[in-house]
Amino acid sequence: MNPARILLLFLFTVVLSARGDPSVEQWGVFELALKGPTNGNPFLDVRFSARFKQGTNSVEANGFYDGEGVYRVRFMPEKAGKWSYRTASNARKLDGKSGSFAATRPSPSNHGPVRVARTYHFAYADGTPYEELGTTCYVWEWQPEPLQEQTLNTLAASPFNKIRFCVFPKHYVWNTNEPILYPFPGGPAATNWDFTRFNVKYFQHLEQRVLDLEKPGIEADIILFHPYDEGHWGFDRMPAEADDRYLRYVVARLAAYRNVWWSLANEWDFMKRKKETDFVRFGEIVSHEDPYRHLLSIHHGAKLFNHNLPWITHASIQSGAAVQTPARARVFRDTYHKPVVYDEVQYEGNIPSGWGRLSAEELVFRFWNATVAGAYCGHGETYKSDDQVLWWSKGGVLKGQSPARLAFLKKVLDDAPAEGIDPIDHHPEMGGQAGKYYLVYLGKQTPTNWSFEIPKPPAGGLQFADGLRFTVDVLDTWNMTVTRAPGDFTLKRRDDDTYADKDGRGIELPGKPYMAIQLKRLKN
Amino acid sequence: MNPARILLLFLFTVVLSARGDPSVEQWGVFELALKGPTNGNPFLDVRFSARFKQGTNSVEANGFYDGEGVYRVRFMPEKAGKWSYRTASNARKLDGKSGSFAATRPSPSNHGPVRVARTYHFAYADGTPYEELGTTCYVWEWQPEPLQEQTLNTLAASPFNKIRFCVFPKHYVWNTNEPILYPFPGGPAATNWDFTRFNVKYFQHLEQRVLDLEKPGIEADIILFHPYDEGHWGFDRMPAEADDRYLRYVVARLAAYRNVWWSLANEWDFMKRKKETDFVRFGEIVSHEDPYRHLLSIHHGAKLFNHNLPWITHASIQSGAAVQTPARARVFRDTYHKPVVYDEVQYEGNIPSGWGRLSAEELVFRFWNATVAGAYCGHGETYKSDDQVLWWSKGGVLKGQSPARLAFLKKVLDDAPAEGIDPIDHHPEMGGQAGKYYLVYLGKQTPTNWSFEIPKPPAGGLQFADGLRFTVDVLDTWNMTVTRAPGDFTLKRRDDDTYADKDGRGIELPGKPYMAIQLKRLKN
Repeated sequence: MNPARILLLFLFTVVLSARGDPSVEQWGVFELALKGPTNGNPFLDVRFSARFKQGTNSVEANGFYDGEGVYRVRFMPEKAGKWSYRTASNARKLDGKSGSFAATRPSPSNHGPVRVARTYHFAYADGTPYEELGTTCYVWEWQPEPLQEQTLNTLAASPFNKIRFCVFPKHYVWNTNEPILYPFPGGPAATNWDFTRFNVKYFQHLEQRVLDLEKPGIEADIILFHPYDEGHWGFDRMPAEADDRYLRYVVARLAAYRNVWWSLANEWDFMKRKKETDFVRFGEIVSHEDPYRHLLSIHHGAKLFNHNLPWITHASIQSGAAVQTPARARVFRDTYHKPVVYDEVQYEGNIPSGWGRLSAEELVFRFWNATVAGAYCGHGETYKSDDQVLWWSKGGVLKGQSPARLAFLKKVLDDAPAEGIDPIDHHPEMGGQAGKYYLVYLGKQTPTNWSFEIPKPPAGGLQFADGLRFTVDVLDTWNMTVTRAPGDFTLKRRDDDTYADKDGRGIELPGKPYMAIQLKRLKN
Repeated sequence: MNPARILLLFLFTVVLSARGDPSVEQWGVFELALKGPTNGNPFLDVRFSARFKQGTNSVEANGFYDGEGVYRVRFMPEKAGKWSYRTASNARKLDGKSGSFAATRPSPSNHGPVRVARTYHFAYADGTPYEELGTTCYVWEWQPEPLQEQTLNTLAASPFNKIRFCVFPKHYVWNTNEPILYPFPGGPAATNWDFTRFNVKYFQHLEQRVLDLEKPGIEADIILFHPYDEGHWGFDRMPAEADDRYLRYVVARLAAYRNVWWSLANEWDFMKRKKETDFVRFGEIVSHEDPYRHLLSIHHGAKLFNHNLPWITHASIQSGAAVQTPARARVFRDTYHKPVVYDEVQYEGNIPSGWGRLSAEELVFRFWNATVAGAYCGHGETYKSDDQVLWWSKGGVLKGQSPARLAFLKKVLDDAPAEGIDPIDHHPEMGGQAGKYYLVYLGKQTPTNWSFEIPKPPAGGLQFADGLRFTVDVLDTWNMTVTRAPGDFTLKRRDDDTYADKDGRGIELPGKPYMAIQLKRLKN
């Protein structure tokens, strides 16, 4: 935006504010609340939406019934400036209401929603890179309030910038307590729910927690369905029309929150009463109803979903095996041409189940393998606890040793080029940005030196020439140290494919596992 | 089929034959040739097809103009018994001709076309397993006739049961000779082709070679487009309507041959004048025009095609890297839920290009990695030659050491369960059929013994119990020996996940690379 436009926008905002028009930040939530009918079943009977306009830009957002005669419609302006709106409804009191408001420039911590960037990566809408580093607390928001507050405090102090959690409560090993609220009236016996109405307090609480996550900059990866119910409440086996109505209601309530991601399901294929085609329908509903095209994926148990479907924005993958080598971790990028997030690679912990007893070293190892493969990885923690509070399901405090190492990894990534890490062809252990930045991960190997050798960048990108200089840092990814190798390294062509140091120098290593080497090109 | 039906069918066939009706084998080619118009441009002006009926079964096949006033329509009956037909055309002489013929039971070597079987594998239409073992001679059929005959003789004596080759001639390193024929009249300068007519002799020759391959049981994996023209003739940059007409013509001519597979392209993404959407259109045309749903895939250079598309029957993949470990070779099965054929994994040879200088050991190693991953692999050979005849492009004779080892692999597979080899969960080096057959490939490892340990089969399949017995064979995949380990091995549960030998015996190994171990369950 040129300075004149910025000035105009500023003046315009001042004028609007002076006139008393409401205002929200760009990518904030504008909400219109109107009183409407209370007779019959408002969830079924009343259609309510609003169209928001700015110049030729026009966005329709569905509203929703929030109980006690109040109807709301929410809108996330993706551009600053003046917006006008007009409602539409089959209820006269809600129809044809119009108005306007100003979207002001975003505050410094507001970068907008996260989007796919450069095919395999993410960035906020304002272009700020987003290096995904997620964790999982499936039903933290349905635990007693003090525990929820503790979880929020823990997250704010952690390296994590995304959390996966479920809309519906969970009934599973280590998760047999009832939630503080239920999503529908009736119950708690599985046969008594009234799926034609929503418990608005449940969803009000859910969206408050989404807002609470937004403050410390944590993305909410919202899991819409999951199998960990098995008929206990029956939310995993609602009739199709109840499923679809539920999805529309959640999207209407939550889509205007900028930190929302949609995960259609956790372990979709373990939901015995649903078919693959049901999830295709769910994906089509969510992607159609969400005016802002939030990130959307689906997580599997044993059978990978078809992540090539066009409405899937990134591949959310469960695989402990794929991240055991960087070479294997690359493959999903090639098959899907989308960002790859290994949202579940098993958890640091000590429970008997095979998926919940990784050492911290092993979990951090998997993160690094994913990283140099140009993919992203997810954390979870399952340490047994007398109070039955395992981070992975309920939140609370982190007890493991991996989060500190993941904070170290995050610092490395924040310091890497804004374009992120891409695989370097034919060099599975090496990621980076060809020509200017390389990250080599040695994993469980324990060499005592590393030959300084860099493959010639592919045609079309940054090129090498004799005399270019690199700095070399030796990273101990477990002990979290960075040691600068003495002196710069100066390139000299060795053969058609490779450049080495002009004096043939290599890099000394301590003979320990979990070492990485970082090469940064200096401006000559 | 019950005996009464077989008898009826037999009698019926005898009666038909006695009446003098034409007959062809089930899965053979019935051909109707009619004289029709020669004026104008018959390739453009005349529509000609026939509908073939047997009871409620009705199949429409497009005909084609074969020059000199002759129009042909071909049909592959997929069921034995009497078939009737009626033609349709905008030319009066070709319209409304009807008749009937008998499809007789197939001869012993005729198993019908190859189909996908059990999601990840192949079988002939009659149920006979088909263990894919392919090679590549891109333009063998456009070389001088004696060389073509030599290629056919070599193939007949080889272990290969599929060959990839191109419809269009190739202009590329080691391939700069002109073809014996051209597909269109005009030329050979790129600007002179008449893309509105076909050179029928070119396609007559092509289909003769497809038939010649059928005799020794070799599937013809026909590559419809390729980039190795670069404007030399311009067949890689025809107008869209010429592309589409060409596809319809090839399918009309060839689809009735049972050994046909379609490969939309070799290295589709290296065709600079085509877009991904062009290949989607090509795939839709071929799958729509082919009445028999022959196997259909597409081969890539650097960018994998979307093999999740519904009309793609199997994933044809180029990757040397994926088959360097069995673990990585598994991943494409999970992403596509289709058979995975590594049609190009680089070639045995000694040319300077990186893709053409594998050792025979390395190529065979890659085949075995693919095999225990439940996938299939492809062969090619690029040994330099004074006569410029490299197998990979022109055919001729095989000079390498891998074919003998691939014949050994084929014997192992032919001896394995008819269901084929599937990966064994959590054991990357192990493939087989859980509970009854295991193939463990040790690759470049050189252990001197192997602990006899088998993972407990997953729930739902064959189960283990103490006392079950297995035989153990040690396979030297390079030296092609099979050594039976002394005595049987008797199962004893070791822990929740594993069974071992009751006496704790292991298997001695020679400490050499490229060993495999084959475990077969005995009927107790």
